[in-house]
Amino acid sequence: MSNLRRLDLLKTHLLSKFPTSSLDRSLDEYRGRGEKINSSLLSQLYFEDGYDTLMKMRKAMTKNPLFNHYEEAEMPREKLRERVVQQIASLYFSFNLSYEVDKKWPLGKCHFCFGLAEHDLGLTTRFCVHIILYIDTLQNIGTKKHLELINRAYQLLDYGSFGMTELGHGSNVAKVETTATYDHNAREFIINSPTPTSAKWWIGAAGKTANMSVVFAQLIVDGVGRGVHAFVVPVRDYATHETLPGVILGDCGKKLSNDGIDNGFMLFKNYRVPYDALLDKYSWISPDGKFKTSFKNQDKRLAVMLGGLIRGRTAVVIGSEQNMRHALTIALRFSAIRKQFGLQNGPEVPILDYQTQRYRLIPHLARAFAIRTGGLFLCSNYIRIRPKIDNEPESDDINEHHAFLSAFKVVASSYGVACTQDCREAVGGLGYSSYSALGRLRANQDTHLTWEGDNTVLIQQAGKFIFKQIQRTFKGYKINAPTLSILKTDYEECKALKQSFENSQQLENEKMLMELIEFKFNHLLHKALLKVQENAQVSTDMLEVWNNSQVFHIQDLGKVYGEYVMAREFLKFVHDIEAKCEVTGRVIRKLFYLYVVDTVDRSIGLFLENALNSQQAKIVKDSVIRLCNEIAPSSVSIVDALAAPDNVLGSAIGNSDGQMYTHMIESVENGPNVYEKPEWLPLIHQIREASKSKQ
Amino acid sequence: MSNLRRLDLLKTHLLSKFPTSSLDRSLDEYRGRGEKINSSLLSQLYFEDGYDTLMKMRKAMTKNPLFNHYEEAEMPREKLRERVVQQIASLYFSFNLSYEVDKKWPLGKCHFCFGLAEHDLGLTTRFCVHIILYIDTLQNIGTKKHLELINRAYQLLDYGSFGMTELGHGSNVAKVETTATYDHNAREFIINSPTPTSAKWWIGAAGKTANMSVVFAQLIVDGVGRGVHAFVVPVRDYATHETLPGVILGDCGKKLSNDGIDNGFMLFKNYRVPYDALLDKYSWISPDGKFKTSFKNQDKRLAVMLGGLIRGRTAVVIGSEQNMRHALTIALRFSAIRKQFGLQNGPEVPILDYQTQRYRLIPHLARAFAIRTGGLFLCSNYIRIRPKIDNEPESDDINEHHAFLSAFKVVASSYGVACTQDCREAVGGLGYSSYSALGRLRANQDTHLTWEGDNTVLIQQAGKFIFKQIQRTFKGYKINAPTLSILKTDYEECKALKQSFENSQQLENEKMLMELIEFKFNHLLHKALLKVQENAQVSTDMLEVWNNSQVFHIQDLGKVYGEYVMAREFLKFVHDIEAKCEVTGRVIRKLFYLYVVDTVDRSIGLFLENALNSQQAKIVKDSVIRLCNEIAPSSVSIVDALAAPDNVLGSAIGNSDGQMYTHMIESVENGPNVYEKPEWLPLIHQIREASKSKQ
Repeated sequence: MSNLRRLDLLKTHLLSKFPTSSLDRSLDEYRGRGEKINSSLLSQLYFEDGYDTLMKMRKAMTKNPLFNHYEEAEMPREKLRERVVQQIASLYFSFNLSYEVDKKWPLGKCHFCFGLAEHDLGLTTRFCVHIILYIDTLQNIGTKKHLELINRAYQLLDYGSFGMTELGHGSNVAKVETTATYDHNAREFIINSPTPTSAKWWIGAAGKTANMSVVFAQLIVDGVGRGVHAFVVPVRDYATHETLPGVILGDCGKKLSNDGIDNGFMLFKNYRVPYDALLDKYSWISPDGKFKTSFKNQDKRLAVMLGGLIRGRTAVVIGSEQNMRHALTIALRFSAIRKQFGLQNGPEVPILDYQTQRYRLIPHLARAFAIRTGGLFLCSNYIRIRPKIDNEPESDDINEHHAFLSAFKVVASSYGVACTQDCREAVGGLGYSSYSALGRLRANQDTHLTWEGDNTVLIQQAGKFIFKQIQRTFKGYKINAPTLSILKTDYEECKALKQSFENSQQLENEKMLMELIEFKFNHLLHKALLKVQENAQVSTDMLEVWNNSQVFHIQDLGKVYGEYVMAREFLKFVHDIEAKCEVTGRVIRKLFYLYVVDTVDRSIGLFLENALNSQQAKIVKDSVIRLCNEIAPSSVSIVDALAAPDNVLGSAIGNSDGQMYTHMIESVENGPNVYEKPEWLPLIHQIREASKSKQ
Repeated sequence: MSNLRRLDLLKTHLLSKFPTSSLDRSLDEYRGRGEKINSSLLSQLYFEDGYDTLMKMRKAMTKNPLFNHYEEAEMPREKLRERVVQQIASLYFSFNLSYEVDKKWPLGKCHFCFGLAEHDLGLTTRFCVHIILYIDTLQNIGTKKHLELINRAYQLLDYGSFGMTELGHGSNVAKVETTATYDHNAREFIINSPTPTSAKWWIGAAGKTANMSVVFAQLIVDGVGRGVHAFVVPVRDYATHETLPGVILGDCGKKLSNDGIDNGFMLFKNYRVPYDALLDKYSWISPDGKFKTSFKNQDKRLAVMLGGLIRGRTAVVIGSEQNMRHALTIALRFSAIRKQFGLQNGPEVPILDYQTQRYRLIPHLARAFAIRTGGLFLCSNYIRIRPKIDNEPESDDINEHHAFLSAFKVVASSYGVACTQDCREAVGGLGYSSYSALGRLRANQDTHLTWEGDNTVLIQQAGKFIFKQIQRTFKGYKINAPTLSILKTDYEECKALKQSFENSQQLENEKMLMELIEFKFNHLLHKALLKVQENAQVSTDMLEVWNNSQVFHIQDLGKVYGEYVMAREFLKFVHDIEAKCEVTGRVIRKLFYLYVVDTVDRSIGLFLENALNSQQAKIVKDSVIRLCNEIAPSSVSIVDALAAPDNVLGSAIGNSDGQMYTHMIESVENGPNVYEKPEWLPLIHQIREASKSKQ
């Protein structure tokens, strides 16, 4: 808390016009109801490799007056942008990040970004664009000569942006309109933005901050289009910060949130850059002016060139979990404190005691664990494949990583939106206050749906990978992606369940539950295959067939891939924690049960088609409710174990001390002009006069 | 468009740094694809009784420079509040609203509010609080002596607020903590806010504007609590606008949207008001100081006292349709213009040609019609029951109106959130720009979920009414609510469908579809009855039984009530329009089919339990897709027929002229400091220096 803010609060308390409040013990009472979980163990396993960085950053942010959500909420756009840069600078230099460190510890800079996201998505995004999208592109597809730029970027001497999206093209990057024409005489490229829609758009940091940018453009050599390539170019003068001649940079303006990011547009008019601007690991131009490339397939080359998005999408997965965890911390604490209604003639009871409220919140807590444990797998797999990114960019391992990362990105971002929305609704009107933080979390989470690959488009990449693996089996090969090993190509093998259940005990069993989610995966695979066959009978264009097999089929197939891998990883996590603490393990196991049972219930129609009967559907629904009831008493302790410190969370209704009404009053009384007459008072009198003159 | 803004745009065009754009004909091309619908007929039937008011208000707003979304988006909170009051004043006096007019034409002032909502939810809400919540409460439960206040309010001499919600109590109004103690000697009431949580909270107009308020408080007579009653009291001095002694008024601060409403808090310290402050139609205190009431049941009396919410909830229903219609207008026009990908080696195609995009948008268009046609029924039924509100407040007719209004409010508000969210996602990153308007529409729509009765709580009122009607049948009476006449109390009568379908033609038939939705209603009723019986075996507290029967049961039952009545009204609308224009009727009939088929698909599990088989489930899904495909070509023309004028819509990507890229560029280039260096440039240099000193 800043000294100024502390003083404000003290002043408010003394000057408050509200009746004196007594200590509210509701939150502690609720905490006392559940299992005594081992918070420290849970937190260490949950954050795993990132634990130390996270704790260090939380501590640094808690002590630092620059991190204050209440101030940020009322800041004008430009002020907020300045604040965000100050925040980055205040933390960055104590972490010694560099290319060398990144090679040894590829998660290091990710953890730093996740730490920033504990405070705010806008903050982390602003930095991720530089340290992940910009730098990773240089690292992935640049060559030795770009090393100096990489080092300068790690030192924050240059601040980079990522010029991919254009006003007219987002998902279809292959069709961007920006051109880079090779001039052999000068051995330079001439970059141009030929149309209004070719303007690079939404480019983070381009609005005000960046002096460098990666620019994706159609490479033209000797009048021949060679497809999209990436160039690293200066856009502002290093010393004066003036936009360079031939470049136009501007601000994309107000957004629905995340105004701390200076998203900008970028246009080029005959902007000449030297040959070395080309990131030339996979394409280059020989000294005699001939285009060369190590990729025959342009699409594959483009996919590799967009490798900077790998860690960007990972940040979406973890970032979604963070928004969910924050929102759940707020909503669960609120619900334990907030009392409303009760039994006949009894006292009012905490709303977290109601079935409706539990069902609104607890399944999201289970999902947060699914995303987090999926995210841990994502991180460990990234370490495994990292050397191949540099050396075998087309290997199956990398394709598999891409595929489930795409599925995770889509599943996590949509879970996140559903969760932050339900949390906002679950706290009622107070969720509409800026001081609850839920509106910010909800609006921030929203971006995750459409950036780093629009969900509807991205999920198709997961679907394509699955189809390619199935095609292998048609040719007599085996599926070679470990995350898909449970897929059965023979429908007879999977159309019925091997196990069954007649009561909730039999249902709540890890083998039964994993079989259910595996069934769903296989069932959707076969429905999708059938739909593609059906569509192939009426069209010969395979893209049309593909496009017409999306809704209910490929789209759902891609998502269940993500859900299945997450469930598998969640179960491993349960085993791990059970081995270390029985009590904690018991609660987390119930969360795992709930995750799968709830997933089954939400697609119960698929199961009723041929695997379950209506009596079993009832058992599933009853199980969802019962698990919510069993977990609810421990839910506050679970979020307590994982929660960010109060000022990092920044919610008047989500503080760990449980005094939410007091904090809400403080926040409101500290607002600008809280007790002042309106500046526009004369208007009220004018209206009355106008009215009287009409009578 | 204001002259200033027009000048700005002209200046921008001349000074624009973007390449010159050519005319984009994509939107007109898409318009040319569909049926030639009769726009004027459609619009007249759709807006019905409100058509003239709407057209008059749209015209007035189009010509008035006060209505400018781009300006409002960047306005500080206080400036926006002033603007909203100016907007109200600029329109109000040409509509001659009064108590007399309201008695003759009860929809008149509703239409005025709906007209304001065409521009913005914040605008209409700010006025609805006064003209509906405040005035209707006076009209409903005041007596002759309050007539003067009613007239003053209609003349805008007084501006009223509605002091119901408190910091500690929202849904459970019966437990508000504010007290009104009767002092017989002075024949006055003494109003007090005994605790911090007793502060009236979120009170619209209390923050800055209102000089009057209705206040709900626990009436205490001779030391005996007599339940919640409403009082009308001055809160600010009429002449000076100072808060009156004994009253504390303040500003609730920043919200996640709707900052044009000055929501405030209200506290009372021994605030004395005369006896006539009591709205005494149903409770009064005799001259000898005895409490009298015409209601034995406190809960029923409170329900009648909250009658001001009837038209408030109606505004939520219509307001949701408006947000949806605006969002769909923007997203559908965008999708007809935006091109991305295409078939092998073909040109890029409008994204509205994709199955995924059609499925994301077209079902919402069908739902908007369902809400609107349900809303028309709501309005006509309101006229029918209006005399009973004054004379027989406990009549079954009014209870029925309450019940389906509650269901409509819940269904419409959640449809609205899903729609505005999908529209925002469907336009990708550009939906994140403030200039797209979609973020505003989405955030505004969000409030509808929790105000005017929190959805989770409110839907239970619909459920209770259904249960009471069923209880009548147990006693040998018939169901007497016409909207529930299709309910069967004998499960054998409804557990199977009478008709069946083996292909989509047989499915797409109004009798078949109405039977499906009636089946769902009956099926959920019987599941809910069984669940209540099941729970009653383990608990004797009927409230506990009720609370534990919510999820999957009462909650879903209440919603299907709303969906069923909407479907019934939608079908009447189809018949009506078919009689007048065959072509238009054909398209709207398909929308009706889609509405029901989509509703069936989204709860397909219920049907698969015992009514449909998996082959029929496939027919349902295929039908959803095919109907989306058949409607899509006409979808732009449908929204065109109903759309608000461009400046009322206020979206750079949703203009009727189809030049969305040009408008987006204009909006951005008109933003503040678009091409300026950051004010905080020194910070960038400081960071570099700090970095260098560490090397």
